Amino acid sequence: MPSLQLDERQTADFEMIGNGGFAPLTGPQGSADWKSVVENITLENGEYWPIPITLAIDADVSEGETVELTSDEGKALGTLTVTEIFERDIDAEAEGVYLTSDREHPGVAALHEEGSRCVAGTYEVKALPDHEEAFMKRYLSPDESRQAFADRGWKRIVAFQTRNPIHRAHEYVTKTALEITDGLMIHPLIGKTKEGDIPAEVRMRCYEVLMQDYYPNDRVILNVFPSKMHYAGPREAVLHAIARRNYGATHFIVGRDHAGVGDFYGTYDAQKIFDDLDLDKLGIQPLFFEHSFWCNKCEGMGSGKTCPHDASEHVFLSGTKVREMLDSGEIPPQEFSRPEVAQILIDAYSRA
Amino acid sequence: MPSLQLDERQTADFEMIGNGGFAPLTGPQGSADWKSVVENITLENGEYWPIPITLAIDADVSEGETVELTSDEGKALGTLTVTEIFERDIDAEAEGVYLTSDREHPGVAALHEEGSRCVAGTYEVKALPDHEEAFMKRYLSPDESRQAFADRGWKRIVAFQTRNPIHRAHEYVTKTALEITDGLMIHPLIGKTKEGDIPAEVRMRCYEVLMQDYYPNDRVILNVFPSKMHYAGPREAVLHAIARRNYGATHFIVGRDHAGVGDFYGTYDAQKIFDDLDLDKLGIQPLFFEHSFWCNKCEGMGSGKTCPHDASEHVFLSGTKVREMLDSGEIPPQEFSRPEVAQILIDAYSRA
Repeated sequence: MPSLQLDERQTADFEMIGNGGFAPLTGPQGSADWKSVVENITLENGEYWPIPITLAIDADVSEGETVELTSDEGKALGTLTVTEIFERDIDAEAEGVYLTSDREHPGVAALHEEGSRCVAGTYEVKALPDHEEAFMKRYLSPDESRQAFADRGWKRIVAFQTRNPIHRAHEYVTKTALEITDGLMIHPLIGKTKEGDIPAEVRMRCYEVLMQDYYPNDRVILNVFPSKMHYAGPREAVLHAIARRNYGATHFIVGRDHAGVGDFYGTYDAQKIFDDLDLDKLGIQPLFFEHSFWCNKCEGMGSGKTCPHDASEHVFLSGTKVREMLDSGEIPPQEFSRPEVAQILIDAYSRA
Repeated sequence: MPSLQLDERQTADFEMIGNGGFAPLTGPQGSADWKSVVENITLENGEYWPIPITLAIDADVSEGETVELTSDEGKALGTLTVTEIFERDIDAEAEGVYLTSDREHPGVAALHEEGSRCVAGTYEVKALPDHEEAFMKRYLSPDESRQAFADRGWKRIVAFQTRNPIHRAHEYVTKTALEITDGLMIHPLIGKTKEGDIPAEVRMRCYEVLMQDYYPNDRVILNVFPSKMHYAGPREAVLHAIARRNYGATHFIVGRDHAGVGDFYGTYDAQKIFDDLDLDKLGIQPLFFEHSFWCNKCEGMGSGKTCPHDASEHVFLSGTKVREMLDSGEIPPQEFSRPEVAQILIDAYSRA
């Protein structure tokens, strides 16, 4: 049997399909689904799906053939039975999904790097990729997280996607959502991100310290989301929501510029896209949040929606400013970041 | 034409029917609706309705007659055309609606005071009762509040029922709900409450100061709710929700022991009752909240759901303790109450 080694991003897609996070997908999508996803945000069968999950490879395989798969780290994963080989229109996918053909966009750049020859088919999953212990000890598959929610008697579960450390603004948003639900799943993406993003293992240390000191563990589950980033903004917010529905969440937090990058998307585009979707059909309810901050006059956290005071009363630091402070070993104000989290980031930066 | 002067509580019911807050009611309920409400929490036509709205009077009127109505303050309100005179079973109403026949319960006591002879019919509304200027300047009828929401472009509006001053815990709950909606309607009940409750005009001064200093006025409307209290706990939470649906709200906050009194209801009974209702049919979504407080470790507001820390870290004062402090002119900690609100209460108590 011919064999094929998946790269890191392909391995992540295999894992999300294999663990059920990308249900109903059972393998890399074919041309009919690809076209429908790009043009209509749906699979060919009408179910919502916002970003093609394809396998673009040069390997010498043909339709009907079954190929053995290994992960980027060489682990045997199972097989792919090829049902179709097709050429995708990269520009159409870029414009349709990423709303730009600019190769500066990391998602569009990835399309060009992958190429246009796509191999579709069905995975037979024999094993899932390995992750380091810091991730594995928190790893729940969609079936397992649904069971964990049921075990706790939670009916309304809000999921929080993150690829950043949790500062107080994020903590505020998650706790606000938790107030009106039964449980919270903090679900950091641990798959491939772009250069400059904070590594997942550093972020995990931040999440763990918050679980230890600031989140009630009977109401909060820290799980990991082994997916890669597309940076597709609105379309990716929908993908993130669908995946969390598969994990058993009923609500999904969508903040400002969710899954965005640079200035490619408007601040609230990733919220607005849900206005055009039938949420009952989607199967999960988005919860929208605005820019949050500590306000000295409120003596508390709030947002532009709940705080009437002037911006001069708000404790807010830009990403650049935070980075500068952490780089120089300076702890940001505790109204911005929990000191325990800041210390982890300072340690990580000073080692880098 | 014979005439009838309504008492304060009957005037409040007339107003709620007359202004549309108790839609679809058009007058005091008859025996078929009374029975269905008590036994099934629905009108005879199947729509939810939790507490009989009846007019129990001794006056010498007969079926088919039209009676002129004046308010408790003597204002001409319109007429009642009598369609039925019936005897209600007070014990059945007490047990079915209030879940007790104990006359210590102020709602049950009121039933006995009113008596069992009920006059049903249809109101012709020519005028609504008067209120003092502090209420009238904030008064929006259900039609007007729906229009106000539409004018602001709000689609998701959360309403907050209150018959108490707003301390930081209540402010936290309302702002938390506002984060996930478009707008907040603070909707204090200004009708008759029981001895010992803080008078509505004092409460209004507290709300006004919060509107001035702590709530963003482009996201928050202060309106008044000219209804009386029944203290029927779970059943009254449903009445409060239905009325706010009529005012155009899409979400309704239900806290601990909503509309309860003494130890007559379990802490979460007024939340649990919604589990047995079809919320689509009800037409408004309840948002449930737990006991909230400032936590010194969190350095912020939270609840048992969102704060993992020991109760010793929480700033919480019992109602009795707050009353003692205010009575002696002592300002409660700012983590418990906004100083501006505390000052109004101290002034009110010192005048009393």
